[in-house]
Amino acid sequence: MRGDESEKEPPPPPQNPSFGCRGILNRHLRCIVKLGGAAITCKNEIETINEENLKMVSLQLRRAMAIPDSSDEFLGMNWSKPDGGLDYVSEVENDGCPKLDLDSFVIVHGAGSFGHFQASKSGVHKGGLHLPLVKAGFVATRISVTSLNLEVVKALAREGIPSLGMSPLACGWSTVGRNMASADISHVIEVINNGFVPVLHGDAVLDDLQGCTILSGDVIIRYLAQQLRPDYVVFLTDVFGVYDRPPTDPSAILLREIVVNEDGSWHILNPTVAEQVDFTVAAHDTTGGMVTKISEAAMIAKLGIDVYIVKAGTSHSLRALKGEMTRDNIAGDWLGTIIRGSKTV
Amino acid sequence: MRGDESEKEPPPPPQNPSFGCRGILNRHLRCIVKLGGAAITCKNEIETINEENLKMVSLQLRRAMAIPDSSDEFLGMNWSKPDGGLDYVSEVENDGCPKLDLDSFVIVHGAGSFGHFQASKSGVHKGGLHLPLVKAGFVATRISVTSLNLEVVKALAREGIPSLGMSPLACGWSTVGRNMASADISHVIEVINNGFVPVLHGDAVLDDLQGCTILSGDVIIRYLAQQLRPDYVVFLTDVFGVYDRPPTDPSAILLREIVVNEDGSWHILNPTVAEQVDFTVAAHDTTGGMVTKISEAAMIAKLGIDVYIVKAGTSHSLRALKGEMTRDNIAGDWLGTIIRGSKTV
Repeated sequence: MRGDESEKEPPPPPQNPSFGCRGILNRHLRCIVKLGGAAITCKNEIETINEENLKMVSLQLRRAMAIPDSSDEFLGMNWSKPDGGLDYVSEVENDGCPKLDLDSFVIVHGAGSFGHFQASKSGVHKGGLHLPLVKAGFVATRISVTSLNLEVVKALAREGIPSLGMSPLACGWSTVGRNMASADISHVIEVINNGFVPVLHGDAVLDDLQGCTILSGDVIIRYLAQQLRPDYVVFLTDVFGVYDRPPTDPSAILLREIVVNEDGSWHILNPTVAEQVDFTVAAHDTTGGMVTKISEAAMIAKLGIDVYIVKAGTSHSLRALKGEMTRDNIAGDWLGTIIRGSKTV
Repeated sequence: MRGDESEKEPPPPPQNPSFGCRGILNRHLRCIVKLGGAAITCKNEIETINEENLKMVSLQLRRAMAIPDSSDEFLGMNWSKPDGGLDYVSEVENDGCPKLDLDSFVIVHGAGSFGHFQASKSGVHKGGLHLPLVKAGFVATRISVTSLNLEVVKALAREGIPSLGMSPLACGWSTVGRNMASADISHVIEVINNGFVPVLHGDAVLDDLQGCTILSGDVIIRYLAQQLRPDYVVFLTDVFGVYDRPPTDPSAILLREIVVNEDGSWHILNPTVAEQVDFTVAAHDTTGGMVTKISEAAMIAKLGIDVYIVKAGTSHSLRALKGEMTRDNIAGDWLGTIIRGSKTV
């Protein structure tokens, strides 16, 4: 009888194969992209998005992901006001929709002029949640950075990129003494396995030792690169790459190729420079942004994953995002910095 | 020598005791509150917040949490534009801040006029992520509901409630055949342990069997009540409680007390009604909202946790939120429905 019954009502077969191996990436991850805060916001205006840059970055990401380029052939995914997507969508049916078959990308963005004021005013990065101002600043910082995250997701969705905002605090990530500690990425992987593009961001998070801190987008990038092993990583920023001194200095030289050895030491391969550059001195901005970026990039490069630092919204960034600039064919007219491991692939 | 060294550099003591027992609630959880979509949004206007109601609900929550009521004594936590919080904050120092010592609450809100259009147009609740329209609808739905979540968090933060938006998809929650499956709440607990108020919401989530679905706020409430065992649960809605027929019917009677037995059956204790009410017939709205609410509420009541269904922004909701309306002192002038277990506490 039991046999008959089980024949009558077999359990429904799982239709979502990705769940069979929860937490294991079953898609090829091409690229992790950092949208630098300086590239997508107006640095000196509190909570102001650089709309033009964000739109261009989203368009280039769509092209890099090989979503069909013609406006007839992609489906905008922001159906919220005031985009007016509603009228558009009312005419769309499943049959008429183009199939999305995009390469897997992960996007992480910085905060730029979002969150910075709130965090620095209250000292969230230094911890101390028992202090009312720090607690309030933690809340205020998250409101600001999640506002930016929502706008980034909307901009990407408008271009037909199936973007899902995933906030590190909500993901349950935390730090110990400001270093990445608990970071379960199994649900980030599930999102990728289901054909979506997770959009993470620098966030205020809980810290095991000091109560709370700021987890930067650059640290997230490095952690995800270690765990997910993309083909390459692209940092989109507001300058053409890494320079030997502040790029506002007319004599600053763009460093085109930096090689990282297995012991973590590195040297500049191109151009040949007489002296070693000390980035702790030559830091491009007062927040130490470029120093962090280079040290995180070097750790990624050590894994054998090439890192490109390029100016957002240029032909150079598009080529980097498409993966055209391999170490063997860096064109003379391409402006950017590649940071790579010393091993020959 | 080792002894000497360890004396010189002892490991830093953890300053955040909650991490010592990760995932275990170490605070008393007083209440889980559902902000009904119908109460905080304008039901018939797409993506429109009922600002007046949301403000009143936030104010009442502040009062219920016993944050000092005078405007001089609480610290607004939305420092983002256009609130103008920035000027205010620039004058605040840690010394001058009032200490927050609020009872623990968890807030879950529905979607109302956010997300509904996007989900129903694309059929996200029915699954099928291989269909481009469903995938796009999933993205569009999340943009809409996370927009609402951000506005709810901002409104609460303005009132000094240390609110942190936590989106179920980002939390890694998923369903199997539309029932709650994977739901790690350890990071929700960490947030509560650190004195914050998590603000969750109905969301589009991945589903093990059908690819994706909508996880409703009511189901989240029941799950959290089971796991976290609050003193009581309050549903804030747009009518005074549960009626025996649609409340637009002039002869509709407010059901003041419903008792749920251990076997799941239930009866109306007050008022005494001749006939059993069939809520599957008497559903108050076409989406089956009230039926789901009552069946989820009954499951919570079965656990011995009293559930109050009240009209948002009224004196009745304030008394319910404050926990004044225990089963023994339901005042004659109080309007609302209490759903409780049959056991005497």
